[in-house]
Formats: sequence, C-alpha cells, structure tokens
Amino acid sequence: MPLAFSQLEDSQPSLEHIFHPRSVAIVGTLSDPAYVQWLQGAGYRGSIYPVNSSFSEFLGLRAYPSIRDVPGPIDYVISCLPARLLPQLIEDCGQKGVRVIQLFTARMAETGESDRIEMEGDIVGRARRQGIRVIGPNCMGIFYPEGGLSFVFGAPRESGAVGLLSQSGGNATELVCTGSQRGIRFSKVISYGNGADLNECDFLEYFIHDRQTRVIAAYIEGVKEGRRFFNLLRQATAVKPVVIFKGGRTAAGAEAVASHTASLAGTEAVWEALFRQTGSIPVDSLEEMADVLLAFSAMARPGGRRVACIGAGGGGSVFAADECERAGLVVPRLPPEMRQEIKKFAPETWLLINNPLDASVTGSRDTLFQAARLVAAWDEIDFLLTVTAPIWGLNLVGGMADFFRFVDIYMEIATTYKKPMAVVVPPANVPEDWKWQALMEGQRKLSEAGFPVYPSISRAARALSRVLEYHEQLSAGVNI
Amino acid sequence: MPLAFSQLEDSQPSLEHIFHPRSVAIVGTLSDPAYVQWLQGAGYRGSIYPVNSSFSEFLGLRAYPSIRDVPGPIDYVISCLPARLLPQLIEDCGQKGVRVIQLFTARMAETGESDRIEMEGDIVGRARRQGIRVIGPNCMGIFYPEGGLSFVFGAPRESGAVGLLSQSGGNATELVCTGSQRGIRFSKVISYGNGADLNECDFLEYFIHDRQTRVIAAYIEGVKEGRRFFNLLRQATAVKPVVIFKGGRTAAGAEAVASHTASLAGTEAVWEALFRQTGSIPVDSLEEMADVLLAFSAMARPGGRRVACIGAGGGGSVFAADECERAGLVVPRLPPEMRQEIKKFAPETWLLINNPLDASVTGSRDTLFQAARLVAAWDEIDFLLTVTAPIWGLNLVGGMADFFRFVDIYMEIATTYKKPMAVVVPPANVPEDWKWQALMEGQRKLSEAGFPVYPSISRAARALSRVLEYHEQLSAGVNI
Repeated sequence: MPLAFSQLEDSQPSLEHIFHPRSVAIVGTLSDPAYVQWLQGAGYRGSIYPVNSSFSEFLGLRAYPSIRDVPGPIDYVISCLPARLLPQLIEDCGQKGVRVIQLFTARMAETGESDRIEMEGDIVGRARRQGIRVIGPNCMGIFYPEGGLSFVFGAPRESGAVGLLSQSGGNATELVCTGSQRGIRFSKVISYGNGADLNECDFLEYFIHDRQTRVIAAYIEGVKEGRRFFNLLRQATAVKPVVIFKGGRTAAGAEAVASHTASLAGTEAVWEALFRQTGSIPVDSLEEMADVLLAFSAMARPGGRRVACIGAGGGGSVFAADECERAGLVVPRLPPEMRQEIKKFAPETWLLINNPLDASVTGSRDTLFQAARLVAAWDEIDFLLTVTAPIWGLNLVGGMADFFRFVDIYMEIATTYKKPMAVVVPPANVPEDWKWQALMEGQRKLSEAGFPVYPSISRAARALSRVLEYHEQLSAGVNI
Repeated sequence: MPLAFSQLEDSQPSLEHIFHPRSVAIVGTLSDPAYVQWLQGAGYRGSIYPVNSSFSEFLGLRAYPSIRDVPGPIDYVISCLPARLLPQLIEDCGQKGVRVIQLFTARMAETGESDRIEMEGDIVGRARRQGIRVIGPNCMGIFYPEGGLSFVFGAPRESGAVGLLSQSGGNATELVCTGSQRGIRFSKVISYGNGADLNECDFLEYFIHDRQTRVIAAYIEGVKEGRRFFNLLRQATAVKPVVIFKGGRTAAGAEAVASHTASLAGTEAVWEALFRQTGSIPVDSLEEMADVLLAFSAMARPGGRRVACIGAGGGGSVFAADECERAGLVVPRLPPEMRQEIKKFAPETWLLINNPLDASVTGSRDTLFQAARLVAAWDEIDFLLTVTAPIWGLNLVGGMADFFRFVDIYMEIATTYKKPMAVVVPPANVPEDWKWQALMEGQRKLSEAGFPVYPSISRAARALSRVLEYHEQLSAGVNI
C-alpha cells in the first residue's frame, strides 16, 4: 500500500504527499482522457472513485454522482470538468478533506481572455483557502510508476533515475513513451500545464531532495518566479544534473507558448545566461533530451573525453572522427607499439588501422575484433563508441549473423575491459519485417545489458559530451 | 539494350560511355564483393563475364581464366584483384579494347606507403596510355538503375532525379539504401574512392550536363583540382542544386580521410568559403543529405517561406514554431477574418487556434481538419508542414484509425488546395509489430503520393529551408 500521509508529512519535503494518495477520484468525462484505465493499468493499489452523473459503474468500479457521495476519504482528485464547474468541485473537495486537485481542465489563462485569467486565479485562491494544492490547470498530472499513478498507456512499471517536470502533457507523454523504449526509467514525471499554484520551482525543489531521482529533466515554457528558479537550479546542479528543454525561444515559439500554457517565454539571451550560470544542460529537442538522459542514467560514467570509435566503414569512420571532435571528444591515434602488435595478426592492413577503427579495411571481422580488444584495453581510452554493421549489411549473405556478432562481441569487449560504451544501431525504419525484428532485438539486448543505444554517431557523441561537461564542471567546483 | 558506344561518343559529354557498357567483366574474387549478383539483380542486359582461375562457371555464367579468353568484346572491367596483379590486367585490357576499369582493388595510396602511392600513379599511367579510364582505386563503382549497373542489393530499379558522386563506397551504399526507402530515386551514383584518374571534377562536370540528373549530391573527402572544382561548382549551381557532405572537416576527421582515400581534407574555413561563394549546399551528415535531397526531388517547390504547421500537440506546436523560425521559415499568424470564420464552428477553442495549429486544443479532429482547410486555402501560406498523430497516440482507443485519418486527410487537403507539403511521421523504432506496420504503411502511402516524410519537425524545417535558400539565391542571380 502507498504510505499514509501521516508517515510522510514530518520527515519528507512538503510535496511528498502528492505522490502517495490513498485514493483518487476522477471527476468528469471518464472515457477520454482515460485516467481510470491509466491508474488500473499502472497497478495503482489505492481506491479509485469514478465520479460522474452519467454512470453508476465504470470499468468494474462503482461510480458516484458527486465526490460528496464517495464513502471513503479522498486524497487526490483529477478534474476533467469544464472550468465553470470548478468552484463547486473545490467546495466539495474542501468538505471531503482532499489534499490535491489535478486540473486536466483547460481553457483558462492560456486562452488569453481576461475573464478566464481571472477565473484561474479565483480557482487557485479557493483551493488554497481550503488547504488544497493544485496541479495545473491544463495538464496531465503525475506519472509515478512505483506508486501506480499514470497518464500514459503501456509505460513500464519499473522505476528509474529520471525525474521529469514538464509544462506540456504531450511532451511528457512523448518522452515517457519514446524514452522508455530506449531504456530510460523514471522516478516521477509531473505534467503541470499553466502551473497556477504548484509551479516549476516547487517541482524542481522536490526533485533536488527526492532520493529516487538522480537526474532531473525539465520541459519549460516560462518561469513564474525567476530568482527562486535560478537559485534552485544552482542548488540542483550541485547535486544532480539538470537537463532543460526550453520551449518558445523564438518569436513564433513565444507566441505559441502564450496560447499553450499562458507563459512568458523570456528571451533566448536570458535563457542562455541562465544555463551557463547555473551549470544546467540545455537541449534543443525531445530526442536530444532522451539522448542525454540515456547517457546519464543508463551508462557507466566515462573517466574522461578520450573515445575509441569502432566498427564504422570508411566514410563512417571519417564521420565518427569529425563528429567526436566537433562534440569536444578526443580521438587518440594508436601508439607505435600497438600498431606493431596489430602488424602481427593483420600485416596486410595494419597501416590503415587506427582510431576510428574502420571495419572496411580490416579484411575480416576477426581482425577487427582483435584490434578492438587492443584498443579497448588501452588505458589512454576512457570509453567506447561502437557501431554495428550498417542496415544494408543485413542484405549481404550472412548479414544477420554478422549484425548480432557485432552486438555480442562489443558487449563482451566492453565488459572484459571495463570500458563504458555507447552503441550506434541503425533506426528500424525499414520495410522488411525480418530487418525490423533484427534491429529491435539488437537494441533490446544492448539496452538490457546497460549499454545506451543511439541512432547515429553524432547523437551519441553530443550526448556523451554533455555528460562529461557536467562532471567536469562539478569537479572544477564551477557551481558550488 | 544499352546504347552502343558509337551512338554516344559524338553527341554526349565525354564520360557518357562509362555508363553504357555492352559487356562487363568481373575479374578476381567472385563471391565477395558480389558484383555478378549485383548486376544480375539490377537487371543488367549486356554480357557478364566472370573472370577467375578457380571456377569454370559462376551463377549460371561461364567463367574465364583471363579476360583474354573472353570471346566477345569487353567495354567495362571491374577489378577485385590484389594491387600487384594490376599491371598484367591493364596489359590484357589494352589488348582487349577495354574502355573503363573500375578498381575495387584497394590498399594503394590510402595506405600512405610510398611504394603504394607510386604504384597507384603507375597503374593510372599504364591505363591512360592504353586509352583506358580508371574509376577508383578503392571504390565500389557505378549504380545506374536504368542501365542495370549496381553495387547494392535490393535498391529500386526505378530511375530518378538525384546524381551522387561519393568518395566513400559505404556512404554511397548507405545513401542509396536509406534514401531509396524514403522515396529518393537516383539517376546515377558513382563511388570513386581515391579518384586517381577520374575524379570529383569529372563526375561533377558529367552531372552538370546529364539531363536525367536534376539534383547533384556529393560526398567528398578531398579535391584534387581546386580551381576546376570551384568553377564547376559555380556552373553547376546555376542550373541545378548541388548538395555537399564534406568528410574530414576536423583534425581527427582529416587524419581519417588520409587513410581512407588518401585525400587532403582542406580546412573548414576554406570549405565554408567555397560553399558560400558557389551557392552549393553544405550538409553535416548522410541523414541531412537525404533530408535535403528528398525536399528537392520528391516535393513540389514551395513559392516562398511561409509555412503552416498543422497537427502537433501543445508542446509540439511550440517546438514547431521554434524550429521553423530558427530554420528561417516564416510562421504567419492567422488573420482576424479567419479567426471569425473558425469561431463559427469551434466557438470553445477558436481563441487558441492559430498557426501552428495545435491538435490538442481543437477538441475534435473535425475541428482540426476544418481549421486546417481554411489555413491551407489561405494565400499567405506557401506550403504545409503537417504532423500525424504521435506514436503514443496509437495506444489510445481508435489510435490506429486516427493515425491513418491524419495521413489521408493531409494528403487530400494538400492536393485540394495545391500546397506543397512535407509530413512528419514518428520513426518506426517500436517494439510492437502492429505499430511498426502502421507507421511504415503511413510513410509508404505519403511517399508514393509525392509527399516527403521526415522523422521530426526540425529535420523537415531545416531541409525545406535549404531548398528555399537555393531557389532564392538563384532568382536573385547571386551565382549567375
């Protein structure tokens, strides 16, 4: 069972209770969005009360016409009601002793209409006077796999290191779904929309203290308390990385932000200064955010910037060298003694073998992997960036076996020589069923063994560079 | 039948003959690489002569111990021999009247060894004295779908607008395979490796005059004739776009280039000046190259930079606005009269509907599509950038039908209102078979109907911006 409020209140940061409701009431439309199904699917073990005047039963649960009719206590209410019905709901919630209301309800301040803006303020005021905290409006609420709270279908129940706060419910859902597929696991995710009561600062502060959360991720459109946010970011980055995707950094984006979550976007320059001064990590897209979160949470931390790139072809190796160097990584050339060693087993090609280790010049896979072992064992290499056979390689005779051989031997080499490793596997955007299966299976194997998988060398190199930068800043004491 | 040399020589640019051999001899290793299979698979209709002392028959074809033993004439020879056997081969080719030798043979100048560098020069000298042109060494040769020449498995036989010259065989193969999947079709592709005889200038010059080729693409590691290359690029961009991916722009990349194709990479600054002064289009990866080639070749040309972004969610719409503006596109806000029009059918949400058209605020798909029609019909919009339901939307009840409805209605709207359109479909990197099928099917439908598909808003926006930039330069006469 979830912890009772009384156990948490004194010892934990003040927001802890919002994640541990003994019961949840979903008020309003029941089928869309599907909160009841989400909670059931996520294995929520408290009581679920559908509240709606149209049904007496919903998905095997008894439904109630009003929350006042619910027999037991209600800790957490999810409102899918139209905005005009909220004053009555809050009145009822106050009487019922509800502690948190999450407002899926939208069309408030983000409409830009003065009466709606006023209404939003009024609603929050009423709630606070009743001792109720509000998440939203215009949001999806909480995904907390360990506690069975959810606003997505099919996300893993397994808990993980990443805590996400997001002003956009769509972006939160997208990151939970696509990130989960790539092996990212979440401690808690909060979609908080307009942030009329609890805002980015409250959730950031919560994550600083949350022991489950080792990496903080934030999608932010605007900040309500600038100074507090700045100070909290500095506190946060001193103890855990904070990866921020800022929406609305252009004029067109800022206009979209206003009608999305009623936020003031702030200028690009202000945000760049903020990232720099707080040591937080800016990213430019959800894909890049997932790339960086994966490197922080699913990979052993590299001791430095020296990378061995292994397994691309000729053009691919040139690209690997270019992209690693551009991302600020170091690609050490092989020393003479190692070249002499390679000459013993690869006399024909040894002059061409270097770092990046070009799979197209080694003649045989045995030569490639033998050279890869020497490189991986070398103490001037901090981590490995490996590339499997290309997607068109699957068309060749024995291509499938070759692909899996890359996957297996890379894992074995990284483990044997104790080097952190990221692996590039081509995206499975292929028309042939068997190719898609092979590529997904390769990704799954790597991901389950703790090796992050990237769709391209450049995305891997950039993500790893962000991780290294954070740790370098931290050890240089830049931020402390 | 392919054209005879005599028909071509006088009327066509001098290199035309290399694409129209009446017969091809493959000399040396027969199974790997699989040139015989590639030619057969591509439907080559001339004679194929396997030449190898170990077999008397290969894949249903009679094999010969030497090219001197081949009964008919040979126009084109593919050498898979070790370098030391090349002098004899060229001697034989001279006697046989061969016009072109493609050297898959490698380990020459790219080894960096003086004797190998000398050998490469010697081989080319011998060939030229016999009137033979050399492609390579260290290359895959020609992919010419119309003529049945190929170095890849499973590429479409259909011909298209893109001519590619590539110093890397792996990159050429990669672009042919992944590009073909996305709907790019090629006129001719040449992998030319070290370019010891025919080099980037020769192939660029050829493509300038080749009527099949409407867009030129080049992967280049180094240039042998700088001034000629510069002049040809200026000529080329005046008549067709030239998209260039330059390998070896960093110190580490330049080192990799030396051992890959024995090229001098040149500095980043020199290349940037070259791109600017010639109006050619630089890209930073093969993915970006495919993105841009797709926009040039598979999409109607937009009349200007004004884009309508349709169908992303709240956070996605903010991202769309940001990324379009960053890419230099213009995202016009909807005018008051259109908002009044929208108010008639979407009174609840009309204040929130704008460009980008946010699918999460429209309440119903009908409202979204009705608004999309108004926006697409508006003459202040030059083209559409549409986004299908997100990948996690497939998990929702009716999610699959919803996804296909987006695909179908977008196509119908773009066609009705005669607006060029690019469509964002999430990549099919999903573990569930049915999702992968749906996403690939959606991509296929769009692609076959002539709408380029991109995996993200940012990649679409950047590619389209490159296309617009090229046409703007051209009409401003910058380069002419």
